[in-house]
Amino acid sequence: MLAEIITIGDELLIGQVVDTNSAFIAKELNKIGVSVYQITSVQDDKNHILQAFKDAESRVEIIIITGGLGPTKDDITKKTIAEYFNDTLVLNDSVLKNIKTIWKQYVRQTLLQVNKDQALVPSKAKVLMNKIGTAPGMWIENNNKIFISLPGVPFEMKALMLNEVLPKLTKRYHLPFILHKTLLVYGLGESTLAAKIEAWEDALPKTVKLAYLPDLGRVRLRLSAKGFEKEKINEEVQEQIENLLPLIKDNFFGFEDEEGAVESIIAKHLTHIGKNLAVAESCTGGQIAERLTMHAGASNYFKGSVVSYATDSKINVLGISKELIDTYSVVSSQVAEAMAKQVLQLFNSDFAMATTGNAGPTKGDSDEEVGTVFIAIATKKEVYSEKFMLGNLRSRVINKAVNKAFEMLLKEIFKN
Amino acid sequence: MLAEIITIGDELLIGQVVDTNSAFIAKELNKIGVSVYQITSVQDDKNHILQAFKDAESRVEIIIITGGLGPTKDDITKKTIAEYFNDTLVLNDSVLKNIKTIWKQYVRQTLLQVNKDQALVPSKAKVLMNKIGTAPGMWIENNNKIFISLPGVPFEMKALMLNEVLPKLTKRYHLPFILHKTLLVYGLGESTLAAKIEAWEDALPKTVKLAYLPDLGRVRLRLSAKGFEKEKINEEVQEQIENLLPLIKDNFFGFEDEEGAVESIIAKHLTHIGKNLAVAESCTGGQIAERLTMHAGASNYFKGSVVSYATDSKINVLGISKELIDTYSVVSSQVAEAMAKQVLQLFNSDFAMATTGNAGPTKGDSDEEVGTVFIAIATKKEVYSEKFMLGNLRSRVINKAVNKAFEMLLKEIFKN
Repeated sequence: MLAEIITIGDELLIGQVVDTNSAFIAKELNKIGVSVYQITSVQDDKNHILQAFKDAESRVEIIIITGGLGPTKDDITKKTIAEYFNDTLVLNDSVLKNIKTIWKQYVRQTLLQVNKDQALVPSKAKVLMNKIGTAPGMWIENNNKIFISLPGVPFEMKALMLNEVLPKLTKRYHLPFILHKTLLVYGLGESTLAAKIEAWEDALPKTVKLAYLPDLGRVRLRLSAKGFEKEKINEEVQEQIENLLPLIKDNFFGFEDEEGAVESIIAKHLTHIGKNLAVAESCTGGQIAERLTMHAGASNYFKGSVVSYATDSKINVLGISKELIDTYSVVSSQVAEAMAKQVLQLFNSDFAMATTGNAGPTKGDSDEEVGTVFIAIATKKEVYSEKFMLGNLRSRVINKAVNKAFEMLLKEIFKN
Repeated sequence: MLAEIITIGDELLIGQVVDTNSAFIAKELNKIGVSVYQITSVQDDKNHILQAFKDAESRVEIIIITGGLGPTKDDITKKTIAEYFNDTLVLNDSVLKNIKTIWKQYVRQTLLQVNKDQALVPSKAKVLMNKIGTAPGMWIENNNKIFISLPGVPFEMKALMLNEVLPKLTKRYHLPFILHKTLLVYGLGESTLAAKIEAWEDALPKTVKLAYLPDLGRVRLRLSAKGFEKEKINEEVQEQIENLLPLIKDNFFGFEDEEGAVESIIAKHLTHIGKNLAVAESCTGGQIAERLTMHAGASNYFKGSVVSYATDSKINVLGISKELIDTYSVVSSQVAEAMAKQVLQLFNSDFAMATTGNAGPTKGDSDEEVGTVFIAIATKKEVYSEKFMLGNLRSRVINKAVNKAFEMLLKEIFKN
């Protein structure tokens, strides 16, 4: 069963908004055995949208549309859907009732005609009730094709996907099982890794697909398989993984979970061994804490972080000695290690890590080259650090430093 | 001049990776006067890619392709481009030399045949030299259409766009000037805002397009215009903005800059008045610090943050009294205000803000409902807080709390 996602909105085509909806929808469809054939982003333009519907219908069975359902004049998706199906918009009483409830509960401003008009839906559409927003979802079946229109606001779209679209699709079709397993491999380049596992890759059965996803100092290896016999698919992929693991054992850090994050592997291991973590961040500016706490359950192992961004905060808040900074400079292994030791004590944690560096574009309070980052790990027994040169693009330096810090921390955890 | 972006990679269609490349490319093309007509994401599948090329060529003049240029077997873009143009791959000596240089400098592992093969390019292609990666960019002109193929790794793609593609396109075409101005409006719903400015909107000249971009407690209003007379376009949009501002003056917070961020407005104002900021974060887990420090120049005004995630860190690191927490609970206005006061003192800053709340999915160390967040602002003169109910989706609670904190801080800054 094939689907196409059509995201509608000028803001996507001028690059003002990154389309995160498609990845969510694609991932969820995959889980129920629907493959996404194509993702298409088009402007808020009637003819363009009509053409995109026609093209998609020629390629796939299921067309999921997001965006353009708001109350303002630039939102034309609903009218265009009605035109595509030679249909008219009619007022839906349950939707109007829902809009009034939401308005009363959350908005507390006057209900305007444009808001009431959001209850207009094509007469051929089944409504997918949006309980957390005023734009209704819609489901239209025609010539064995299904058109599903969802609001572009991510959390409304997500709720409708999970509560309405996925259950309805599962009921409507006999869908295959799709399995993806992704292995996190650190410390090997893409081609070196490929050479190392070439014989294994060449011997893969046709049913198992392999992909390399290189990303800032690591490669994610993805194995995929699809079929109607869930047990068999699971076994087939499991067998290949068992053959693969001995070949990459020094560089394998774990399986990526659903959230797609090394943070989850850290969380799992620290929670499992009952230890906790504190962090002192300078150049990473809070991103380590942010990435750890984005996942539920962080409070099981994460004590907190000091983002000592200004040099004087390193002295006043973390208690690093001014002499140490003057002697070795604020970007140095000595300061990184002192930060890790201090934050370990301050939070009374089992593990600590610290970052200090120049993310650029200018040198800041140090003479070290832009892109220089020191990362330190401290435990109650020892403290050590590594130096990295991470290029000269600010956001890349920060992201790469966070990945390196997670890599070092995982290695330390695995020692225990 | 119209362009289409084609992003290639199974990882996009299964939702493992969010396509951020398209937004970057679209934004940059817009700046030089090229409009993006459509964005299309397709699988690593030869026939699908060939079809996408053909379709795009029928719609636009410029086709920008990303992805599928890596050294591994799942990367088939280059072969497919050669097939599309009835061309063959030939070894390009300068590319091979570049690969060897990069290999020596960054990789220090054995150069394999697959890496050398990255120097194979279609004979009809002009090479866009990728100085920071081994996959070359390519530029092929045929029948007045331009195909540009770029690596999918974001920082390599970005460097090639900025250093090669944009200058070449500007030289090749006589391009119009495109102007977008985006106003940040806080505290009004989309439809209330629309009603408030309806007369102004209806009187807009046809040349100026308006879009509403609602997003977690704020609406971004975007005005766009395009033409060959830069001066005239600027004046026309400026005039409309001057008519608009009096209508929304209590809710207008500033213009969104290129980076698209309220953080930049905070940075600009704090730097301008020479004041600085410290933050104490509980439920926002470091995201406030992370978002502020993602932008260059944060050290001009940002002192740092304490992410006091665990309750005992609020006591041990921030110095909140245990009695206060026991009396009012850790999620309370009293604790939020104490956190803001303490962190103001600790970092000796002019402004401080603090967050404490339950991001969910479970209640944590408090009886307050999931989604309850208290945000406090402290200055040397006063401290105050507000309570928010932000729903029950963890990532949404966190993101919304950060936006609310930025909103409160901006209001406080504007008071001064």
